[in-house]
Amino acid sequence: MAGIISESVIKRLPRYYRFLGELKAEGLERISSRELSERMGLTASQIRQDLNCFGGFGQQGYGYNIQLLQAEIGEILGLNTPKNTILIGMGNMGRAVTNHMNFESKGFHLIGLFDAKESLVGQIVRNQPIRSIDTLDEFCRENLPKVAILCIPKEAAKGIAEQLVKLGVKAFWNFSHYDIAMNHPGVVVQNMHFSDSLMRLSFKMGNN
Amino acid sequence: MAGIISESVIKRLPRYYRFLGELKAEGLERISSRELSERMGLTASQIRQDLNCFGGFGQQGYGYNIQLLQAEIGEILGLNTPKNTILIGMGNMGRAVTNHMNFESKGFHLIGLFDAKESLVGQIVRNQPIRSIDTLDEFCRENLPKVAILCIPKEAAKGIAEQLVKLGVKAFWNFSHYDIAMNHPGVVVQNMHFSDSLMRLSFKMGNN
Repeated sequence: MAGIISESVIKRLPRYYRFLGELKAEGLERISSRELSERMGLTASQIRQDLNCFGGFGQQGYGYNIQLLQAEIGEILGLNTPKNTILIGMGNMGRAVTNHMNFESKGFHLIGLFDAKESLVGQIVRNQPIRSIDTLDEFCRENLPKVAILCIPKEAAKGIAEQLVKLGVKAFWNFSHYDIAMNHPGVVVQNMHFSDSLMRLSFKMGNN
Repeated sequence: MAGIISESVIKRLPRYYRFLGELKAEGLERISSRELSERMGLTASQIRQDLNCFGGFGQQGYGYNIQLLQAEIGEILGLNTPKNTILIGMGNMGRAVTNHMNFESKGFHLIGLFDAKESLVGQIVRNQPIRSIDTLDEFCRENLPKVAILCIPKEAAKGIAEQLVKLGVKAFWNFSHYDIAMNHPGVVVQNMHFSDSLMRLSFKMGNN
């Protein structure tokens, strides 16, 4: 149903998905493009153009069926595809990510947490034990995770990324500054670069 | 010296700044656009084009002076401008951000940490006490922070953002899902939307 969708529409899809989820939680069934545009700070014509890319969920005069539209966007985003996932690095960042993210609702099944610090091994976080990084090879060969979340420093990330790619990991959610995409062109990477974001804020402040 | 710089160049500036910092740390003084392009996974002509936007730090056959170029990019990004900053929400995310970010090197002076949980108040994190959210008004009137980092849930962010805008905060580094920019058009916002990033990773995996 989706056909080819432009890069800029794709970038907006997660936000549509979030907003539609909130409307659903409020008990709404339908919404007009005008109402949705007011909620999201986009123009109504922008929204109609975006949502026309994937099927006819809007009916003239009736608005969009919220549940169907959200389900279709979720399908395009691949949120229903199960993705076995491990997380490396259980410092503050790894803990924050483990505790606060709703992984399951996006198809990411968090099946293993790892750290190099012996004192952390065995601790339970979100019903899972922290495992020793020494058991990573064995765990991956048995459980075949396809996604790794790296919450470790740049220096550690280089070796771990290489190890994980060899073990069959295909996608990284990368909180380190190590440039995985450049060094492993075959895998998919989404970076969370905190300091780049902070520098952009700094730039915006000087140019507001 | 900078003139008008396009949006796409600006987006790349933090990455240039990071890479040049690493080269400096390695003790290098100059680098050719070819070497820099290999390091960064860009083409040499892309780099020459980008860096031509702000002055003549490259000399034919001599490459770029790393220190001067990084300093100039830092200046454009406003990293030398002091920005008094507070952080609200000292859960795992707030702690991770407080402990791991090098704020000072980007001009952000972290002058206050706040939480609503009484049991956290008085704890010391990175040499600072966690303050009660009840003292936020008084603190802001005395210390005039211009930047706030919000590491709190969406429900709490609405009220706090409104309070902070009234107290003179001009910029937000926003880890919540509350859409500050839409509700306060006068302020500058940089969002860290974890779940949007994870959804984009999911999409990329299905379309690699």
